[in-house]
Amino acid sequence: MKIMILGADGYLGWPTAVDLAFKGYNLMLVDNYLKRKLMSKYKKKPLVSSPKLNKKVSLLNKRKCNVDYSNIDCTKFINLNKLVASFKPDAVIHYAELPSAPYSMIGYDESWTTLQNNLQTTLNLIWSIKNLKKSCHIIKLGTMGEYGTPNIDIEEGWINIKHNGRKDKFMYPRQASSLYHTSKIMDTDLLWFYVRMFQMQVTDLMQGPVYGILENEFMEINNLHNTYSYDEIFGTVLNRFIVQATTKQPLTVYGSGNQIRGYINIKDCLKCIELAIKNPPDNGDMNIYNQFTEQFSVNQLAYKIKKALKKIDIDVVITKINNPRKEKEKHYYNAKNNSLMKLGLKPTLLTNDEIIKIAQYVLKYKKNIDKSIINPKTKWV
Amino acid sequence: MKIMILGADGYLGWPTAVDLAFKGYNLMLVDNYLKRKLMSKYKKKPLVSSPKLNKKVSLLNKRKCNVDYSNIDCTKFINLNKLVASFKPDAVIHYAELPSAPYSMIGYDESWTTLQNNLQTTLNLIWSIKNLKKSCHIIKLGTMGEYGTPNIDIEEGWINIKHNGRKDKFMYPRQASSLYHTSKIMDTDLLWFYVRMFQMQVTDLMQGPVYGILENEFMEINNLHNTYSYDEIFGTVLNRFIVQATTKQPLTVYGSGNQIRGYINIKDCLKCIELAIKNPPDNGDMNIYNQFTEQFSVNQLAYKIKKALKKIDIDVVITKINNPRKEKEKHYYNAKNNSLMKLGLKPTLLTNDEIIKIAQYVLKYKKNIDKSIINPKTKWV
Repeated sequence: MKIMILGADGYLGWPTAVDLAFKGYNLMLVDNYLKRKLMSKYKKKPLVSSPKLNKKVSLLNKRKCNVDYSNIDCTKFINLNKLVASFKPDAVIHYAELPSAPYSMIGYDESWTTLQNNLQTTLNLIWSIKNLKKSCHIIKLGTMGEYGTPNIDIEEGWINIKHNGRKDKFMYPRQASSLYHTSKIMDTDLLWFYVRMFQMQVTDLMQGPVYGILENEFMEINNLHNTYSYDEIFGTVLNRFIVQATTKQPLTVYGSGNQIRGYINIKDCLKCIELAIKNPPDNGDMNIYNQFTEQFSVNQLAYKIKKALKKIDIDVVITKINNPRKEKEKHYYNAKNNSLMKLGLKPTLLTNDEIIKIAQYVLKYKKNIDKSIINPKTKWV
Repeated sequence: MKIMILGADGYLGWPTAVDLAFKGYNLMLVDNYLKRKLMSKYKKKPLVSSPKLNKKVSLLNKRKCNVDYSNIDCTKFINLNKLVASFKPDAVIHYAELPSAPYSMIGYDESWTTLQNNLQTTLNLIWSIKNLKKSCHIIKLGTMGEYGTPNIDIEEGWINIKHNGRKDKFMYPRQASSLYHTSKIMDTDLLWFYVRMFQMQVTDLMQGPVYGILENEFMEINNLHNTYSYDEIFGTVLNRFIVQATTKQPLTVYGSGNQIRGYINIKDCLKCIELAIKNPPDNGDMNIYNQFTEQFSVNQLAYKIKKALKKIDIDVVITKINNPRKEKEKHYYNAKNNSLMKLGLKPTLLTNDEIIKIAQYVLKYKKNIDKSIINPKTKWV
């Protein structure tokens, strides 16, 4: 089976590539290193740096994997269309989006760059696959952030509404709290339109904040890390907390810490991707799955880390700082996540052991940590 | 009161400018003639051509109006930001979008041009007004097409949902049937996000297909027509039917003709715009009004025209052709439209007299009609 991965150099893209390559899939990895460039522009860096795709792919192929790569910019239609036409994928995993809420809120330029990159790449992919004239499953990373924090249960993508004695099934209403998350709502609008028009097959994975690292022997031996980010722009909360904890800094909770979200371990994210590959929708259908395993408030998350790291003699201090974001801090939150479990996902829960494993990984590279890039400088308003 | 009109050369933009200019508003008209260029590219033309803004504005100012104009491209942020900063509008009427469903479905280039033009202009306007640092009301033309044809009543922008024993108010779910209409959904996503973040004032006018001409002495004397389009790409259904009727061609109903939509006379559209100007939302609020006065199926519309034109001895033939669009042809449709009535709109209904008036206008310019541009060549799939 031939799979193209857009954004294959990223935090999720690269572990996905390794995972699928060793499972025998024929892969085409695509990345133009836009996120690396932006991280360098804003003077942020991941915990451990990693070589680019040429090096990584040649190491994979030495292990009898069947992987190729291309550095095209997916926002250029002519390039993506040509690559899709020549590789003829059976599925495309679409990670090629700017994924940072703070980045999208810096100013005008960053807001347009986020919209343009994310929407044009998605549109280009849609038309490239239409031009391919064969079934090809788009697996698109969405985000739980598209739903916002509604006062009713969050269903998986769709909701049945009764109104004035009549009923219909709708896309679950979306209302995000960053321009990045809004760009993902717009992506969903775009995909759902063309699914109906062009009879495409799309799976939209509404993912919660991801944490952790892939434990993989090939990656460890060859020093091919995923981009574990902990900075204020590209980092995610749990990864950042663990960096703070292991360097004796207080965990900085934004605002009251009562914000609840659904979280997922990166190992489970990879399992979900494979479940999506193996369960394509019919032509003209769009599967939407909520891709998280547990929901916590930020306070609960911080306390879990404190409790776990106590066991390896790390004393964690938790502190609250002004919330740089504009978001509800007190809200109902009950999101459904049965679909991926039904397909076979066995969740990796956020146990003490899992937290300790991530902390031990971070401790190994402690000397790389730059404390100056952690505190939030990007404010929503 | 200072009002900026983006897209001031268009079918709605120019009559709005004339109407508000004579009511004493201080206006800045903006247009880069993109629609004129596209009409010329696709070899379409309006019933009567009209001079550009320089000529039109000088004629307005001879009548003691207070009007200026600019030919900037609103997709260039630096230009729009500068113009907004210097003019300092109290309100901006945003018509500067590519408005054609068939155009947006021609191919990849047209789909991206539609998305990019419509979203970037809206984003640029949002940031220009944020940078202005004073209250400025954005009046945005949305479309009833954003809602699609749901099986429940269409409320005005928002809906209260009860679900599993809890409730919340949401943006009414949207599901369009062209890429153009989808771009308007995405516009709404964008505006609603920044209304909440930047405490902006936005009115989103969900307009049904507009028909007719503005009867205006100044426009008639000076031969300054609105762009009455009847072609397959830029024309709307009622205007097209009247051109077909007056040139002894059958009215071409797409598909079964059971598609129901809400329609509005252009004279009422202008009244709604002024009602919106006079009733701005609070900062951080978004008013959404359904802007149509009556709902008909395409068959009902065709029969109304047949019946009305019989009175001036025009025999109208109605015929059905394959629907070039992909849309539901049998569906429930009950859209609410109370809000603008409550603000004072007295609807101009589609009476025999109104139909005859439009037909008489079209007959005056009958020699201009190009029959070859009417039949649909643009297909959805």
